[in-house]
Amino acid sequence: MERKTHSPDELFVRLRQGDRVALGRAITLIESTRSIDRQPATELIEACLPYSGNSIRLGISGTPGAGKSTFIDAFGTMLTARGHSIAVLAIDPSSGVHHGSILGDKTRMDNLSRDPKAYIRPSPAGSSLGGVARKTRETIVLCEAAGFSQILVETVGVGQSETAVQAMTDLFVLLLIPGAGDELQGIKRGIVELADLVIIHKADGDRMALAREAQMHYQRALHLYPERSSGQSVPVLLASSIEQTGLVQVEETIQNIISIFKENGHFQAQRKDQSGFWLRESLMDQLSTWVFSRHREDYKQLEADVLNGKTSPFSAADELMRKITGSKAD
Amino acid sequence: MERKTHSPDELFVRLRQGDRVALGRAITLIESTRSIDRQPATELIEACLPYSGNSIRLGISGTPGAGKSTFIDAFGTMLTARGHSIAVLAIDPSSGVHHGSILGDKTRMDNLSRDPKAYIRPSPAGSSLGGVARKTRETIVLCEAAGFSQILVETVGVGQSETAVQAMTDLFVLLLIPGAGDELQGIKRGIVELADLVIIHKADGDRMALAREAQMHYQRALHLYPERSSGQSVPVLLASSIEQTGLVQVEETIQNIISIFKENGHFQAQRKDQSGFWLRESLMDQLSTWVFSRHREDYKQLEADVLNGKTSPFSAADELMRKITGSKAD
Repeated sequence: MERKTHSPDELFVRLRQGDRVALGRAITLIESTRSIDRQPATELIEACLPYSGNSIRLGISGTPGAGKSTFIDAFGTMLTARGHSIAVLAIDPSSGVHHGSILGDKTRMDNLSRDPKAYIRPSPAGSSLGGVARKTRETIVLCEAAGFSQILVETVGVGQSETAVQAMTDLFVLLLIPGAGDELQGIKRGIVELADLVIIHKADGDRMALAREAQMHYQRALHLYPERSSGQSVPVLLASSIEQTGLVQVEETIQNIISIFKENGHFQAQRKDQSGFWLRESLMDQLSTWVFSRHREDYKQLEADVLNGKTSPFSAADELMRKITGSKAD
Repeated sequence: MERKTHSPDELFVRLRQGDRVALGRAITLIESTRSIDRQPATELIEACLPYSGNSIRLGISGTPGAGKSTFIDAFGTMLTARGHSIAVLAIDPSSGVHHGSILGDKTRMDNLSRDPKAYIRPSPAGSSLGGVARKTRETIVLCEAAGFSQILVETVGVGQSETAVQAMTDLFVLLLIPGAGDELQGIKRGIVELADLVIIHKADGDRMALAREAQMHYQRALHLYPERSSGQSVPVLLASSIEQTGLVQVEETIQNIISIFKENGHFQAQRKDQSGFWLRESLMDQLSTWVFSRHREDYKQLEADVLNGKTSPFSAADELMRKITGSKAD
């Protein structure tokens, strides 16, 4: 038998003791798409929930060239040296069956992958962002119940996944690099607005002048976004993973922002908002999947009529609702 | 009898002849919330659909101090002098029962309200943006069937309504004013990104230097948003309604952008996308209303459990789906 199965109770007990193997199996259970795994997965999460919520959840984003893995390796190693235990997760909806997964190649985090106080979990495979987001958010609960004090959720700069990561973390960090023409090149619109903290990475050697220029550029640019729900301005810091400079300042800035968030109530309010968000999001996601699978043909037909100008989108929606609620009545 | 009723057929014939009174009655029928008006309203829209789509639909946004009414009055008068017939509509979900409606006071458009080639319709009353958006989009269809060559949809700078207006217009124009400290003050995040064209308004007299400064500022700031679905850069123009300067350049720039959009296929593609968007949007809107009214208590209970950390948002959504689809099965 290839894979040993465990009861949710047993996994829970061992996971609470900090057993990495149990944590790995628990996450695999959560990620499973087999219907028989659904119930034990739910039980396990519900068991872990009362022991979750005590970590700091960091979202880390940036384009492929920004050096996210290198940064997480250096920053994470600094964190564990300072007494933290960290879990590194990833959201990468494009990864498919782990091909090109941003964390698939663990060797990209040389130090961290050998660090006993760090746990690295590659991005779950999945076709829909909703599914991947759900699995990642549930994995955060497991990691917190297993005792990790900081959770780093990495995402590649590909649009919607940033919004998902921001909606499951306490603080969203954006990595940028100096130079390269327009510094926003490759960064999707709206991503910069999500950031609670911007780091100009690779600020070392010959790049220092460019890095300082980029820092000023972003300080100005971020000034263009005055209204943030946290009420905080966005610091723009310099850091180098190779020279290991700026990392302590990043950590202290994060702790400082978190303290302010906790004092002014934003921290707690944001976590509640996030829970409400995922409830609505998940419900609407499931509802639309259900409707589209039950009324696929009707939808396709009415959509064609709408696109050909035969009917208005609103009349078509009315018609679909009659079919949906009508079929419910019989 | 206060209100004379007309058959949709009769309204349609008179509206197609350009009869303003019939158009007004037709819009009132569309806006009606009485259930007996629903069917004739739908018939009327379906009758008008084949004659719609030939106008240029402009979205016009800006904060209350930007002088939208003054601009539309001057710009619209210039348009009718150049041979256009224009309809001015508004989206203002905050207007409630016309109190503070941005177009409620027609006298704010002195010239246009007396112009035989212009038709001004105040914002429909409505509590939900979805409802107001639907009525406005249907009103566009009626106005186009009545022969108007340009439809101006005005919206106040209050967030979501801009997205709705952008999703029903061919070109989104943002009015800004010079000076006033940070020029983006009061403009919601993300609004600038929606713009196809930015106008620095009130560029006259003493304000000219500030206006030129603002123009340069926005040309630089808009450079930060490199990826637009249209593939076009965003012109930043100066205009004054009082001195009637820059208005012809605005019109020529709009015509030029529309020509490019039509040539590269963006115009047609965007309209199709918009129809698909409103179909999905309206369907999901109705679905969620239906679910929340049918399962309000279940939702409230599960939401409370989620916010108290008793259950995960995803398990709660699963539970709700079982109730929704379960109740369907019986």
